[in-house]
Amino acid sequence: MRRNESLLDLVLELQSLDRLPRAGYVLRGVTDPESVTEHSWHVLFLVWALGRRIPEVDVGRAVEIALVHDLAELRIGDLPRTASRYFPAGAKNAAESAAMEEILAPLPPEARQLYAEYQAGSTPEARLVKACDKLQLMLKVAAYERWGADGLAEFWDNPDNFPDGGFAPVRELFEELRRRREGERAERRARHEAGVAG
Amino acid sequence: MRRNESLLDLVLELQSLDRLPRAGYVLRGVTDPESVTEHSWHVLFLVWALGRRIPEVDVGRAVEIALVHDLAELRIGDLPRTASRYFPAGAKNAAESAAMEEILAPLPPEARQLYAEYQAGSTPEARLVKACDKLQLMLKVAAYERWGADGLAEFWDNPDNFPDGGFAPVRELFEELRRRREGERAERRARHEAGVAG
Amino acid sequence: MRRNESLLDLVLELQSLDRLPRAGYVLRGVTDPESVTEHSWHVLFLVWALGRRIPEVDVGRAVEIALVHDLAELRIGDLPRTASRYFPAGAKNAAESAAMEEILAPLPPEARQLYAEYQAGSTPEARLVKACDKLQLMLKVAAYERWGADGLAEFWDNPDNFPDGGFAPVRELFEELRRRREGERAERRARHEAGVAG
Amino acid sequence: MRRNESLLDLVLELQSLDRLPRAGYVLRGVTDPESVTEHSWHVLFLVWALGRRIPEVDVGRAVEIALVHDLAELRIGDLPRTASRYFPAGAKNAAESAAMEEILAPLPPEARQLYAEYQAGSTPEARLVKACDKLQLMLKVAAYERWGADGLAEFWDNPDNFPDGGFAPVRELFEELRRRREGERAERRARHEAGVAG
Amino acid sequence: MRRNESLLDLVLELQSLDRLPRAGYVLRGVTDPESVTEHSWHVLFLVWALGRRIPEVDVGRAVEIALVHDLAELRIGDLPRTASRYFPAGAKNAAESAAMEEILAPLPPEARQLYAEYQAGSTPEARLVKACDKLQLMLKVAAYERWGADGLAEFWDNPDNFPDGGFAPVRELFEELRRRREGERAERRARHEAGVAG
Amino acid sequence: MRRNESLLDLVLELQSLDRLPRAGYVLRGVTDPESVTEHSWHVLFLVWALGRRIPEVDVGRAVEIALVHDLAELRIGDLPRTASRYFPAGAKNAAESAAMEEILAPLPPEARQLYAEYQAGSTPEARLVKACDKLQLMLKVAAYERWGADGLAEFWDNPDNFPDGGFAPVRELFEELRRRREGERAERRARHEAGVAG
Repeated sequence: MRRNESLLDLVLELQSLDRLPRAGYVLRGVTDPESVTEHSWHVLFLVWALGRRIPEVDVGRAVEIALVHDLAELRIGDLPRTASRYFPAGAKNAAESAAMEEILAPLPPEARQLYAEYQAGSTPEARLVKACDKLQLMLKVAAYERWGADGLAEFWDNPDNFPDGGFAPVRELFEELRRRREGERAERRARHEAGVAG
Repeated sequence: MRRNESLLDLVLELQSLDRLPRAGYVLRGVTDPESVTEHSWHVLFLVWALGRRIPEVDVGRAVEIALVHDLAELRIGDLPRTASRYFPAGAKNAAESAAMEEILAPLPPEARQLYAEYQAGSTPEARLVKACDKLQLMLKVAAYERWGADGLAEFWDNPDNFPDGGFAPVRELFEELRRRREGERAERRARHEAGVAG
Repeated sequence: MRRNESLLDLVLELQSLDRLPRAGYVLRGVTDPESVTEHSWHVLFLVWALGRRIPEVDVGRAVEIALVHDLAELRIGDLPRTASRYFPAGAKNAAESAAMEEILAPLPPEARQLYAEYQAGSTPEARLVKACDKLQLMLKVAAYERWGADGLAEFWDNPDNFPDGGFAPVRELFEELRRRREGERAERRARHEAGVAG
Repeated sequence: MRRNESLLDLVLELQSLDRLPRAGYVLRGVTDPESVTEHSWHVLFLVWALGRRIPEVDVGRAVEIALVHDLAELRIGDLPRTASRYFPAGAKNAAESAAMEEILAPLPPEARQLYAEYQAGSTPEARLVKACDKLQLMLKVAAYERWGADGLAEFWDNPDNFPDGGFAPVRELFEELRRRREGERAERRARHEAGVAG
Repeated sequence: MRRNESLLDLVLELQSLDRLPRAGYVLRGVTDPESVTEHSWHVLFLVWALGRRIPEVDVGRAVEIALVHDLAELRIGDLPRTASRYFPAGAKNAAESAAMEEILAPLPPEARQLYAEYQAGSTPEARLVKACDKLQLMLKVAAYERWGADGLAEFWDNPDNFPDGGFAPVRELFEELRRRREGERAERRARHEAGVAG
Repeated sequence: MRRNESLLDLVLELQSLDRLPRAGYVLRGVTDPESVTEHSWHVLFLVWALGRRIPEVDVGRAVEIALVHDLAELRIGDLPRTASRYFPAGAKNAAESAAMEEILAPLPPEARQLYAEYQAGSTPEARLVKACDKLQLMLKVAAYERWGADGLAEFWDNPDNFPDGGFAPVRELFEELRRRREGERAERRARHEAGVAG
């Protein structure tokens, strides 16, 4: 695959993104894990729902950043997080930028700049997308656990998965999610003991 | 399921949308068909990429409409298009509105109004989302055909699948897609004959 | 899709029923959930195995009712139970009847009457099928829990899922199933504690 | 697994039948092929729909035979047809009978006799089920071909797949199916050529 | 399918082995269970990694035995272990040998002798492969349990699943695996209680 | 994930390799594509079956190289071939070597040297594995095409997919495969025309 020549090339290529499963789940045995497209949609929804509660964020722009933030995976694949242990620093970022040049070629230059802004993480909008990228991860982990998956506990122990970007509404949602999970586990346990007694 | 009480309730419920396959593909034997979430993301991308080429469209608002346009399916399911032959006129729209009230309850009222605007189809933004909803359908049909699915030919014969909303950029993309598909079929055929001769 | 013109039209259309997953499981994250066809077969088996123990039931007729009881889903889809909260009373029943008229058109009128009898639920045979429809639900929930699914506990708390139709053999099987589940959970727990101690 | 002790044992074990894919499709690369349960339901429907057109058939009994005809696969598996080349004559039948004794143990002896009747193939009812077993095979092959599967052509060339059991309604449906398939292939071809010209 | 005439026939047929799921997992509701090909690869790896620690084993030959040990399943299918209760003694072995004659026909006779050696289980190499066949089973069971599957506990209670072939390195790995599983279950439990308290 | 401390760590981690689908097929819409484990097994079989026909190859060693050749993907993922357009030359090789150090840590140093030999491609054994890596690719492409996949034609046009490593038996198998594919396409076409005429 090369430089997309037209918008049609681009939007046809995007359809394949649905078949790319997220590697972190695959390697932990989650069956029928979410696709990169699905992850992207949920991140976008979070950015939109939370962004409107954060005065310093331009929601429209944050939504645009979320829209493009994972598209390089069409050419690079969804690398497991462990991959970064083995690649030289910056190699993945450089590869993603190069891929984005070719993928988004039919769009005006501002589209590629959204991605550069995301990588740099310097603006409030980019920080919000980065925070929601992890927030969505933990929401999905919680959903998989509800549905019966196991072996995902390590996600809850890794502080890197709870970046709030400095925004109170994100932090609060993270905290509420953690409390909810613990409450559900307590309830499951109580229910289990009652069942045994019943 | 009832009225979502908090944003956390809502965003957790949204994770299930990934498991809902689009009924039209299911009933035509497409294996591993796209989910409602995946469809929604692609519609959103099209609205964003095309909207910026259409002066009378407020892209930010159109993106927001696209974001919510299929969420009622969380409670109603993804009904096959044939369902509308059997329900009284308006029944599905009414049910979707009622479902959206409960799903989006934790968001400000404007969020529900986006959906009402989509159903009414009165603004340029709503018309663009409706057009991109079908454009995405035909892009995915073209992708499935490329990948080997058969039995989808009827989609190309149904004029309802090609609404342009009165917007030239949409119409042109539809036309280019149709030409592309025909070109690929001709190429496949030529390749096949050459293979046979070879 | 329209009125089936011949038996061949009908039996070909029926093949698609295998691809329709049951919505209740889909929305609760059960992976590879049963299809409507699979559900229908199990209901039928239960009706046959239990019906012969119930003097007032004409087993042959009950089996026929079970055979057609879910076919409307070919045109309407498998709506999640929550859908009934949003549709006006009777809308779904009316739509299903209309769909059945077109689906079963190639069969004699008595075939459609089986479905009307099911909806009305007035005869012992219809009541038995309705009871076995839920009994199969709970058997499958128990099977999914055995296999590791979680998040299905609410099914056991909903009295609507345990209709016995007034028939002792159905009631007894429901009770035995509930005891079996509780016993297995107790055993799992004991095994777990032993494993920990071991 | 051993002798089922109660009806509950039996109906719980039956739930696993949904996960057993039909081997003939698996080995020919059909993705997401039908389960043994799905096959069984379709055979049953055919027996019911066709049986009522055949005066010498007791439809109720034929339906019962269809209901049990594949249950031995729960213990034996769904052996590919090629397996019969390697097992001594009668070995599979004997194994299936032994398995059925244990599977159906909680039902009265007549239930096991239905299976013996099927194997012997001596009654009109057993012949009808055997014929519908193949008719369903060819209907599903036709469905898979419509949906894009390839590599199934050999099924149409094997006369063993077209037993009519001596019943005109079965023979006519086989013939209509074959004509339908050929007509659809001709149409696809014509459409393809038109598309190329268009 | 008949006698493979050429190496190309054989290696093309082998591709189907990927679609054959292992029956033991299928019947216990494991979703997306390993294929026969996957099982074979893991057995081979174990034979290679352990064999080099066992002086009396010719690793190269043991690897060759592992490579062919499950190929008969291409023609016979992957029978669930329960099947052996119903087939006469030796019937399965005889069928597998006959199938192997036709599958491996394009290879020199020594290839078929590898399989005979495996069945006889008389050499150290054959014993090692048989031991690793079960070791891989228990490793995968442990993996599925980590990932959230349930209902596999019976595997740990069956002594037939822990043959060490008389080789200390195999025995030690079995023991370490069992300890690891128990440790993980204890940890999960402790984590759970802490979560509840937290 | 870090350095594996024991053989048990390693062989448990290997079980995840079954869930990694090969990216090239995923991005071209092949449903249920082979896993990295499945690919590895087939390469190994080819190396074994062909190696014994090539005097200058040490088959035992070639088999060992095949066994480890794709294990780095456990940590790096299965990158689509396009990824190499965007990473600096050598970055992927370096990352893979680093990953292999940690994955294979519990094995003696010779195990890691097998991989270095594969990457260097300098010995006849390494060349044979590289050739069989592509031969397996084309065999699977041929299998997918037989089964109905489309959109894989480009593989046949890329000379990089047909390396023979300088070995006549490999070259002959490639040639026979290409002829076979063309023959099957011709037959399909003839069959199709006959069907239309019939």
